[in-house]
Amino acid sequence: MFNDFKRESLIGKAINKGILEINVFNIRDYSKDSHKSVDDEVYGGGNGMLMMAQPIYDCYKAIVGDKSSINTYYMSPKGKVFNQEMAIEFSKEEEIVILCGHYEGVDERALKLLNAKEISIGDYVLTGGELPAMVVIDSVARFVKGVLSNDESTNIESFRNNLLEYPQYTRPYEYEGLKVPDVLLSGDHKKVEKWNLEKSIEITKNNRPDLYERYLKENN
Amino acid sequence: MFNDFKRESLIGKAINKGILEINVFNIRDYSKDSHKSVDDEVYGGGNGMLMMAQPIYDCYKAIVGDKSSINTYYMSPKGKVFNQEMAIEFSKEEEIVILCGHYEGVDERALKLLNAKEISIGDYVLTGGELPAMVVIDSVARFVKGVLSNDESTNIESFRNNLLEYPQYTRPYEYEGLKVPDVLLSGDHKKVEKWNLEKSIEITKNNRPDLYERYLKENN
Repeated sequence: MFNDFKRESLIGKAINKGILEINVFNIRDYSKDSHKSVDDEVYGGGNGMLMMAQPIYDCYKAIVGDKSSINTYYMSPKGKVFNQEMAIEFSKEEEIVILCGHYEGVDERALKLLNAKEISIGDYVLTGGELPAMVVIDSVARFVKGVLSNDESTNIESFRNNLLEYPQYTRPYEYEGLKVPDVLLSGDHKKVEKWNLEKSIEITKNNRPDLYERYLKENN
Repeated sequence: MFNDFKRESLIGKAINKGILEINVFNIRDYSKDSHKSVDDEVYGGGNGMLMMAQPIYDCYKAIVGDKSSINTYYMSPKGKVFNQEMAIEFSKEEEIVILCGHYEGVDERALKLLNAKEISIGDYVLTGGELPAMVVIDSVARFVKGVLSNDESTNIESFRNNLLEYPQYTRPYEYEGLKVPDVLLSGDHKKVEKWNLEKSIEITKNNRPDLYERYLKENN
């Protein structure tokens, strides 16, 4: 699952430049069972299979070795919701460990032994923790020095003041009968800023009433 | 970016069985410019580059052809937040189109011409829309008949009644000195259910006070 991700786009470039390192471990390689199985039935009933603690813990020990604790996260819909502030926090760490679940999840004792914090990327269920892990790595990597070039800003305009970003336009001036709003060509920075703010408020009200409420609270 | 995703795991199996089809289009192939460029500077100032409307619209027209409208989504941190209910809704469609942005985003007119609804997978910024598109496809695919086998349930236990899922355990009974809670071995279903509910409430209170509030409202 991780090969394309490690090769393509900004993540691939950062790995090539030696700024970033992503090591993927297959938990199945740490199974002690002759069938290399990593899952078993759930105690107390319930559908599906659960990943066993032993292969996870042995894999973890092989990763961290003698190092003192490394922040460890488990991708799970039960976790605290990942956000931009967490991305910034994570980017300050030298290294982090991310455990990707599969099937119905993992034996709770694995999380305890790894001292893993559960984090969720959103309120939806996925077939495994691999995509969420990539989402976390991608958003964290943007804050690692050298990953973005100078004109790819990390000024997170999308979440400034709890307002979503205003609409943007590029050349040509007219396309399929649709013109760029005149104010954006006026050269009048105050007018442009006013238009941007109005549009931001309009979009936030419509798409994210929760953010709009926070915006009102913090600006009144 | 999509090759591993289309080959691996449940998505790969579903594609092989002919249950699911994922077609990836490169917008760059629709550029009319001799340098195959797809981006340009932002009108009214602002950092970074914006994807132009023309290659996006031409690509879209090549995809939809004569078909009447297909629901089209643009992955963007400005969008409405994607969730499990939306995954179920999307899974009822015969086909959907997902536009992945890059750089600072896309010319607003592209969204208008495609009649694209903006959706966000969470409050964080990523280097592009590809991972979010995979997240949406993965969560939607789980509701397409035949993608999950019978014992991989789509009973979304993680969000039942606004409560997060309780901890789960599998064999062995004791591992690294940690035992499975006795109640789960009792065979007493009422006791197990009570324990599960208590643990669900505890985890939800801790990790998702927002969900816990909703749970209280709907159960009082």
